[in-house]
Amino acid sequence: MIKVVILGGGNVAYHLTNEFLKNTSVKLVQVYNRNLINIEYLKNKTSITNRITELKDADIYIIAVSDNAITQLSSKLSLPNKLVVHTSGSSGIKDLYSSSNKGVFYPLQSFSKNSLLNFLEIPICIEAENEDDEMLLEKLAKSISTNCYKINSEQRKYLHMAAVFVNNFVNHLYQLGNEICEENKVPFEILLPIIKETANKIVELSPYEAQTGPAKRNDTKTIEKQQSLLTANKQEIYTLLSKSIYKTYGEKL
Amino acid sequence: MIKVVILGGGNVAYHLTNEFLKNTSVKLVQVYNRNLINIEYLKNKTSITNRITELKDADIYIIAVSDNAITQLSSKLSLPNKLVVHTSGSSGIKDLYSSSNKGVFYPLQSFSKNSLLNFLEIPICIEAENEDDEMLLEKLAKSISTNCYKINSEQRKYLHMAAVFVNNFVNHLYQLGNEICEENKVPFEILLPIIKETANKIVELSPYEAQTGPAKRNDTKTIEKQQSLLTANKQEIYTLLSKSIYKTYGEKL
Repeated sequence: MIKVVILGGGNVAYHLTNEFLKNTSVKLVQVYNRNLINIEYLKNKTSITNRITELKDADIYIIAVSDNAITQLSSKLSLPNKLVVHTSGSSGIKDLYSSSNKGVFYPLQSFSKNSLLNFLEIPICIEAENEDDEMLLEKLAKSISTNCYKINSEQRKYLHMAAVFVNNFVNHLYQLGNEICEENKVPFEILLPIIKETANKIVELSPYEAQTGPAKRNDTKTIEKQQSLLTANKQEIYTLLSKSIYKTYGEKL
Repeated sequence: MIKVVILGGGNVAYHLTNEFLKNTSVKLVQVYNRNLINIEYLKNKTSITNRITELKDADIYIIAVSDNAITQLSSKLSLPNKLVVHTSGSSGIKDLYSSSNKGVFYPLQSFSKNSLLNFLEIPICIEAENEDDEMLLEKLAKSISTNCYKINSEQRKYLHMAAVFVNNFVNHLYQLGNEICEENKVPFEILLPIIKETANKIVELSPYEAQTGPAKRNDTKTIEKQQSLLTANKQEIYTLLSKSIYKTYGEKL
């Protein structure tokens, strides 16, 4: 049984806590948060604390706090020979400032407190300084997910940025589509099936193969007609992305 | 039983043909295509022809050809008192050049010949010049889909553009994410669950509510760090989309 302490009270901490509580091969020994109110709901399920000095004994200490708090929090820990990991995509393993063994346990998903997630599908990207720790993290990852990947800090930095493109930026394009619909009194829900299909398609096809639309065909007539319908900000985005699509295919065709 | 003739041999024509063939409330009387080879596979299932003069009698003639061929093909038809519709998102009802009654039957989805689609979920956007034709198109739409919308030419023009944002442009962001992964030897499949979750999230939340990431938080440190990792084209897109996200929230917060 792997003994785990979670440090943090945000979305990632929340989901990991719930996942470990229902898991029979992990014992969630304690949850730490600076502010007890956020973790009060756990008091009948596990030990809770807001004091670093009262951390209990465990195999893995998971720091799930905002990126810029990782170094500070880790520097306060005095846990020699223990494994301390963070859960951040954009932070390196060296951002942990600690005499403990260091590692990373990065679940690549967009976490909101309210959404129900199927953790089994969430890829867990792990990194450690030695093989034993790596095996321990792998065991922990596989206890909650079917997808575990060994990703070093350099790769993870880029992986996290790729996630910004396919998650944050994609959602913003949904937002722009929504605005166009609202301005023209068309229900946005009409677009939900094509949004779903666009995301599903790339399970079978590469995005390169899946691309369609006027920019790929270099259909300048349609492109110019559509550009003229847009206000400044959307027009700039339309133009830049169309150019980028055209270049992708123009260069390779 | 609604009698239908389909004109065209591309992806939309292909999927509509298959849908109507298995439908018990529609009789697919004939399929026309300039080039018989594309529709040869239908010869035991319905009448096929490559001659405009040999079109059979039907209630609705569906022109499913590329946008710039609609006017030309429709102008060759001599079908007085019949309903002739096209299936294009970006063309107006007036792009039909014909003495017949005019309409639009626009299934809003990204069609590839190889992909299996659940037509029931595909929104069909209809437009007609009079109530009888509108009712007929609605009946036809509801025979294959649960989602039928009355959308006029002006609205449809914008709806189609919104689809370019949420489909073509979104897929291109998948492509950019894929490139970042390949360049750094990280398997792109790690991103598939977050891609799926991003698309699913907006069924419950608006894209405005669903937005996350450094640009929304105006986390300039992370933004600058990520920008510095990107090559020219991706950097420009990263900067523009981050600015657009920040403006969306900066202005409204």
